[in-house]
Amino acid sequence: MTDAVTICECFARDGLQHEPAFVPTETKVALLEAFVAAGFTRIEATSYSHPERVPAFADASRVLTEVTRRPGVAFKATCPNPRAVRRAIDDLDHGVGAEELSLLVSASESHTERNLGTTRAGQWERVAEMIRLAAGRFRLIGVVSVAFGCPFEGDVDPGRVAEDVARFADLGADAVTLGDTTGVATPGAVAAMFRRLEREHPGLPVIAHFHNTRGTGIANAVAALDAGCRHFDSALGGVGGHPSAITYGAGLTGNVCTEDLVSLFEAMGVDTGLDIDALATASRACEEALGRPLYSMVARAGFARTGFARSRA
Amino acid sequence: MTDAVTICECFARDGLQHEPAFVPTETKVALLEAFVAAGFTRIEATSYSHPERVPAFADASRVLTEVTRRPGVAFKATCPNPRAVRRAIDDLDHGVGAEELSLLVSASESHTERNLGTTRAGQWERVAEMIRLAAGRFRLIGVVSVAFGCPFEGDVDPGRVAEDVARFADLGADAVTLGDTTGVATPGAVAAMFRRLEREHPGLPVIAHFHNTRGTGIANAVAALDAGCRHFDSALGGVGGHPSAITYGAGLTGNVCTEDLVSLFEAMGVDTGLDIDALATASRACEEALGRPLYSMVARAGFARTGFARSRA
Repeated sequence: MTDAVTICECFARDGLQHEPAFVPTETKVALLEAFVAAGFTRIEATSYSHPERVPAFADASRVLTEVTRRPGVAFKATCPNPRAVRRAIDDLDHGVGAEELSLLVSASESHTERNLGTTRAGQWERVAEMIRLAAGRFRLIGVVSVAFGCPFEGDVDPGRVAEDVARFADLGADAVTLGDTTGVATPGAVAAMFRRLEREHPGLPVIAHFHNTRGTGIANAVAALDAGCRHFDSALGGVGGHPSAITYGAGLTGNVCTEDLVSLFEAMGVDTGLDIDALATASRACEEALGRPLYSMVARAGFARTGFARSRA
Repeated sequence: MTDAVTICECFARDGLQHEPAFVPTETKVALLEAFVAAGFTRIEATSYSHPERVPAFADASRVLTEVTRRPGVAFKATCPNPRAVRRAIDDLDHGVGAEELSLLVSASESHTERNLGTTRAGQWERVAEMIRLAAGRFRLIGVVSVAFGCPFEGDVDPGRVAEDVARFADLGADAVTLGDTTGVATPGAVAAMFRRLEREHPGLPVIAHFHNTRGTGIANAVAALDAGCRHFDSALGGVGGHPSAITYGAGLTGNVCTEDLVSLFEAMGVDTGLDIDALATASRACEEALGRPLYSMVARAGFARTGFARSRA
């Protein structure tokens, strides 16, 4: 077990998904370039959601066309359904496109209905079709949303989450993400789940995707790390999160802040592989792109180990 | 080792210390009453700092006179020097006053100079005199600031912190607080320190006082809890923190948010002894008192276990 982690920067997709104003394609591309410059090797770049359902990503193909590719850097695109996968494949057939696709399920029926507009059984049929379509052409990331609790149903049976992970693994997913979609996970539940999955699926990368809705994102990331997790999702500025219709109003903030996660991990001696100065530059670029201060504390106070990047005082 | 913790609510002192506008005495008193109603048994109420140096607490004696006392509830006042202790004693001689006093040292010379205007040796002489004056009349809480790192000197030797704790214990302090004044502690350093102090001073209550300057407050509180700590400081709304002259600009936010800490602890099955509805009321009262939204995530999203207190969406 090394002390190096891989952090996937999610600002451009999970972060932007519910922004009210469309972020211009050239701004998105510039941000992705800044993320590459900071050293991210996995970057959630866009979504092949239907442009009318999620207008923020109407430019998915253009973003993936215009961004400069570098060896060792994988861009990820979210695919809610087989039609989305067909678009990703079409792009790839034209020499552009993502290296990774995210395929989503929710651990509860209610959240599946609100977020994906189908049943769990229906979504698993879709996922199986998506994997059949995409296999061999992309790295496939299964995502289990509301894995630590559902805003509608409350507790989620960890056994069901473990079954979902096993199903993704059986279908051929290359990694599985556990989403604490509305910030209700506790460190103990996180540690137990990551240890269980390490026992049940040794070698399968399990990615921690925590939201900071209730201020617990960093604590849960530390619990996952202690339990052996070496793959994390986060977003610069801590933006993102689902709208209130899907989360009962818990959508004020979203992902764990990349800046804060990296500051702590580096202070703990955990190697993120990132360039702190370039990360601070990318952090500022994200705030400029949205035209407002975002939620990172480190963006204000400076990284713990390298001094004091900025002060408002 | 029980799963019950005692949380000291610090809004009225650490939270208000650097607020630019004076909060009226009747507002402070009403807030303290709301904290009592929520079930806090330890409440940091005010400071006997010199009124010209810290105008926010020019009304220290009036606050402690006007607040309703209840059995089992201890109000704490901060005392930077012997003169402050003499004021606390004078109040007590008139039948009002605090049940607890905080006596401050800093683990680094630089922070001692900036925050207390003296040397560590000089401050320890003051502390010894303060304890001589106050012994037997108050519960005495020794505080070690910058215990996990100093904004001027960087790393702080844990051995020095352990010596400071031992010195407080030898002088007769009833409990010792470890302050992560500028939010540079890591969960590993926190756990090691709390375990060490439990070995060296079994039975001495050691209080975790973490600032969320870099988003790590909750993670460090969980680490302290896991290491056996059962006493925490926090502030509703996460206000507080020293001004930039003392922290190199890391003063944007202050204490761990009480709402967020309580939400997580209760979700973890840790008994805080608090009434969640009354706590939510107190949380709103704090925001109304300062006339702005504060930093608690749970104030927006609702407590993890009891649903969804508020939504802005």
